[in-house]
Amino acid sequence: MFNSKEHSHTRLNILTGDWILVSPHRMKRPWQGKVEALPADNRPAYDPTCYLCPGNKRSDGTVNPAYTDAYVFTNDFSALLPDTPDGGENENGLLVSSSESGICRVICFSPDHSLTLPVMQEEAIVKVVQLWKKEFNDLSQNEHIKYIQIFENKGEIMGCSNPHPHGQIWASSSVPLELTKETTQQKNYFEKNDKSLLSAYLDVELQKKERIVVENEHFVALVPYWAVWPYETMIISKRHVQTVTQFTAEEEIALAQILKQLTCKYDNLFNVSFPYSGGMHQAPVNDGAHPEWHWHMHFYPPLLRSATVKKFMVGYEMLANPQRDITPEMAAATLQQLSTVHYSIQ
Amino acid sequence: MFNSKEHSHTRLNILTGDWILVSPHRMKRPWQGKVEALPADNRPAYDPTCYLCPGNKRSDGTVNPAYTDAYVFTNDFSALLPDTPDGGENENGLLVSSSESGICRVICFSPDHSLTLPVMQEEAIVKVVQLWKKEFNDLSQNEHIKYIQIFENKGEIMGCSNPHPHGQIWASSSVPLELTKETTQQKNYFEKNDKSLLSAYLDVELQKKERIVVENEHFVALVPYWAVWPYETMIISKRHVQTVTQFTAEEEIALAQILKQLTCKYDNLFNVSFPYSGGMHQAPVNDGAHPEWHWHMHFYPPLLRSATVKKFMVGYEMLANPQRDITPEMAAATLQQLSTVHYSIQ
Ligand SMILES: O=P(O)(O)O[C@H]1O[C@H](CO)[C@@H](O)[C@H](O)[C@H]1O
Ligand SMILES: O=P(O)(O)O[C@H]1O[C@H](CO)[C@@H](O)[C@H](O)[C@H]1O
Repeated sequence: MFNSKEHSHTRLNILTGDWILVSPHRMKRPWQGKVEALPADNRPAYDPTCYLCPGNKRSDGTVNPAYTDAYVFTNDFSALLPDTPDGGENENGLLVSSSESGICRVICFSPDHSLTLPVMQEEAIVKVVQLWKKEFNDLSQNEHIKYIQIFENKGEIMGCSNPHPHGQIWASSSVPLELTKETTQQKNYFEKNDKSLLSAYLDVELQKKERIVVENEHFVALVPYWAVWPYETMIISKRHVQTVTQFTAEEEIALAQILKQLTCKYDNLFNVSFPYSGGMHQAPVNDGAHPEWHWHMHFYPPLLRSATVKKFMVGYEMLANPQRDITPEMAAATLQQLSTVHYSIQ
Repeated sequence: MFNSKEHSHTRLNILTGDWILVSPHRMKRPWQGKVEALPADNRPAYDPTCYLCPGNKRSDGTVNPAYTDAYVFTNDFSALLPDTPDGGENENGLLVSSSESGICRVICFSPDHSLTLPVMQEEAIVKVVQLWKKEFNDLSQNEHIKYIQIFENKGEIMGCSNPHPHGQIWASSSVPLELTKETTQQKNYFEKNDKSLLSAYLDVELQKKERIVVENEHFVALVPYWAVWPYETMIISKRHVQTVTQFTAEEEIALAQILKQLTCKYDNLFNVSFPYSGGMHQAPVNDGAHPEWHWHMHFYPPLLRSATVKKFMVGYEMLANPQRDITPEMAAATLQQLSTVHYSIQ
């Protein structure tokens, strides 16, 4: 008889409409491939060579102020620029392009070079949440901006080129691919059921409890049923809101709390500063009402077996279909039993 | 005025319908991030500890025969198995899964442990092409198989756990995501124009010559207009065929030739055994006629700036939209002027 703990199967990602392949029995294969070097992690609170530390000079000559809380500025190497001229080409529908403008920002989470979200004080993370709200609000005043992507690449294995705790914001003049997919799926559901897709999904998950990692009054962190990265998680707000700007002061604190708890569990998994790319998904802006949209945050961590062996999304995954080895339920069970107190102070 | 060499823009991938973001000015940013270790590459022709070398024992106890040409066997750690029971679940369209069966095969390209495609003899690569044809044909006799993915992960940075020259075949009971997208796009075009999408695209590219990397009588290797990996390429057959089984003896030789030439150029780019994940896309099987389908091969190499600095597809790319820095035209110009003679024998 079919058993999802043992047998290969596909699962539907209800947010994108894509399917992922799960091959549970495959964790048994021995690993003789690439082992990552562990980045050194004995950072000082202030690094004179770091272009994000307070008081230091950036590559464009600007000197960072002596900031004490979360601090934001425009990326010196923005992938999107506000003054891009309109244009593009369309050769018989075969060569098709279109100019894209936007604004890229960098958010330092803390003046302290040695910290990361899981080891920051909760009050300091609340300041980060408040700055995210403010930035989202400010950027959306620009009517050319259609979507605001808030994210963090953590760890050098995730392409992060500076270990100073920071995230990024890329605001673009069109709605990116993943958000277009999520809008369609959420819209279809909302129009049929007059309820957000993620509210309905949360109801099922809160009843089953199998994939919940940590929960508070306002937010739930869980391993989604369709997770593709080994320890992928999502934070979903219990209240159906469209964007981060709608969170109350109480929700700001609850979000900071669950962010700290989830990332502590991550660090405790392999006793290492756990790499991931994470970020919020929320409604497009300057694009009419989006009552279907339900704010959430995705975390995509690459590690699979240990602090140095990651999951490779390569040949089959790139050419054919995303694929994972351990089941989302196995990953959730592991994350559930980990402490929310960071290993460095246990 | 808008200039695609300088200004950010999006480009349409006509095969998937997805858009990619190009930020040409971004190559100017300095890189202080992760630098990959170069894998040692002084391999012997025979390695007694390699489970793919002729005469050696594999993990399931089987002893490889003393094979002399391309050699194929069933993967000892297959992600897809033929005897998976039918099953799955569907909870209100929110938790949806379905069992998936299939067959995974490993193809050793050569008995010689020290080789790779670019340094193999052309005649030996022809044997690989012939074995791909035979495998595709044999696997498609199984009516449960709906798609056959032939691919290679080259280099440990691409998750390849054994440097012995080899590729894989994953044959599945449903059509994977990327292939579903490519079928839809090709079908739409074919029904409207009575010509394959890639024939029309090839006409434009052969006229412009800007993105052609190497060409022979039967195949073209080019950097697609919508390439997302820095040095991504495609091989497209000039003749509109659905699968590898339709190639003539002459086309088998021409494919071996262009494979050797393209991978030599790749190795010559940074004077290193160039990592990539590459593989064929072709029509689904046991699924009716697919006259719209046009055989092609994709190559996705991760390196960007040097033998040790890759492009990271992380936060923005995972959460929002695929993004590249150098333009496809810059990449094509670089690949064009490289020799097709391997650096090790120049
Ligand atoms: O089967 P292999 O070569 O050991 O595994 C490699 O290729 C597979 C197919 O792309 C991936 O799923 C694995 O993550 C990768 O390590
Ligand atoms: O801008 P950064 O942090 O230097 O760059 C990093 O994040 C970007 C956004 O995900 C990626 O495009 C880069 O490949 C990565 O190295």
